[in-house]
Amino acid sequence: MQNEKQVPIAVVKRLPRYFRYLGEMLRNNVERISSSDLSEKMNVTASQIRQDLNNFGGFGQQGYGYNVEHLYNEIGKILGVDKGFKTIIIGAGNLGHAIANYSNLQKRGFTLIGIFDVDKSKTGQKINDISVFHMSELEQFMNNEKPDIAILTLPKDEVTEVAETLGRLGIKGIWNFSYSDLKISYDIPIENVHLSDSLMTLSYRININTTF
Amino acid sequence: MQNEKQVPIAVVKRLPRYFRYLGEMLRNNVERISSSDLSEKMNVTASQIRQDLNNFGGFGQQGYGYNVEHLYNEIGKILGVDKGFKTIIIGAGNLGHAIANYSNLQKRGFTLIGIFDVDKSKTGQKINDISVFHMSELEQFMNNEKPDIAILTLPKDEVTEVAETLGRLGIKGIWNFSYSDLKISYDIPIENVHLSDSLMTLSYRININTTF
Repeated sequence: MQNEKQVPIAVVKRLPRYFRYLGEMLRNNVERISSSDLSEKMNVTASQIRQDLNNFGGFGQQGYGYNVEHLYNEIGKILGVDKGFKTIIIGAGNLGHAIANYSNLQKRGFTLIGIFDVDKSKTGQKINDISVFHMSELEQFMNNEKPDIAILTLPKDEVTEVAETLGRLGIKGIWNFSYSDLKISYDIPIENVHLSDSLMTLSYRININTTF
Repeated sequence: MQNEKQVPIAVVKRLPRYFRYLGEMLRNNVERISSSDLSEKMNVTASQIRQDLNNFGGFGQQGYGYNVEHLYNEIGKILGVDKGFKTIIIGAGNLGHAIANYSNLQKRGFTLIGIFDVDKSKTGQKINDISVFHMSELEQFMNNEKPDIAILTLPKDEVTEVAETLGRLGIKGIWNFSYSDLKISYDIPIENVHLSDSLMTLSYRININTTF
């Protein structure tokens, strides 16, 4: 899938949802699904689904619909979840712990290989069987293990410096939980997680339904 | 803002981002901004911004742009973050701890008033100064304190039952971190957080840039 034509980001952002739904169907032993059934389940139009999947060559067959397992596997390949990307967590606080224990990390094909923290009292501990290293060991670890993805659960004022270091050491992508729109001097993909956005969406929905 | 015309969900989902950006500008003492500067900063078209804000009556002035503080406050009101919604967390595990310590919760105007867990050894503890109660105390607490929002950080197989109980006891909205598209018999807003979606988006972006 390398260096293909640019797929609109809105389409890319819908793929994980397709992947989740198809995974659920697969677990429920659904073998095939029409684009209209898929559209109803996912609350997107059937033509939207066809358009989205046509970005990748399309996977449906007229009059048959989609083979669930095939489509699941193909979307998985597009998403790169078949690559077993080697992943590290930086910041062994509560959120770092929660993510290390997050079963979807492994289930989605990401292999957690190390956790880092500046707090020496945490060095040598294990979280969900993964070792916690001191931050001073990061460079050597990066050189030896060549992790692909770093998950940052750091205080906001430390995140940029750490991310620059990771960029210099060759990380391929960053999943950033520190509240900031992280920008660094290396051209690598960064996904900033803004948890409070969905809380505010909820708040909006409560607000318009409520009389105060 | 109660019961106004339905605003498209895509617009609603952009509001928290406007709110974040405007908050940042406010902290940097920016007084006013043109829709084209705002659009450049946010990477949306200026006409998109005008259209979005027109859903709420529009806040700009021809030739002046937007007053940052006014727009920030107005969007805050639309989002309901000025209401100080009373919030509880159910599940005092790592994620529950992380969210209780998440400074944006208070900063965005949500007031955490209690944390619940089935584990008796946690009862009476405090997390970020908020008391942990046993689940058996939930009904009485709901009746006395009338919380608006419940944040669920529970195992997947417990979440539906707890959410039904919350619905029965009058909760106004649910922020669900348990991996499932939660559906219950009460007609209240639910926001399901799918953390792994953004990790898969990152994975996609790494994948298309990488030759294996």
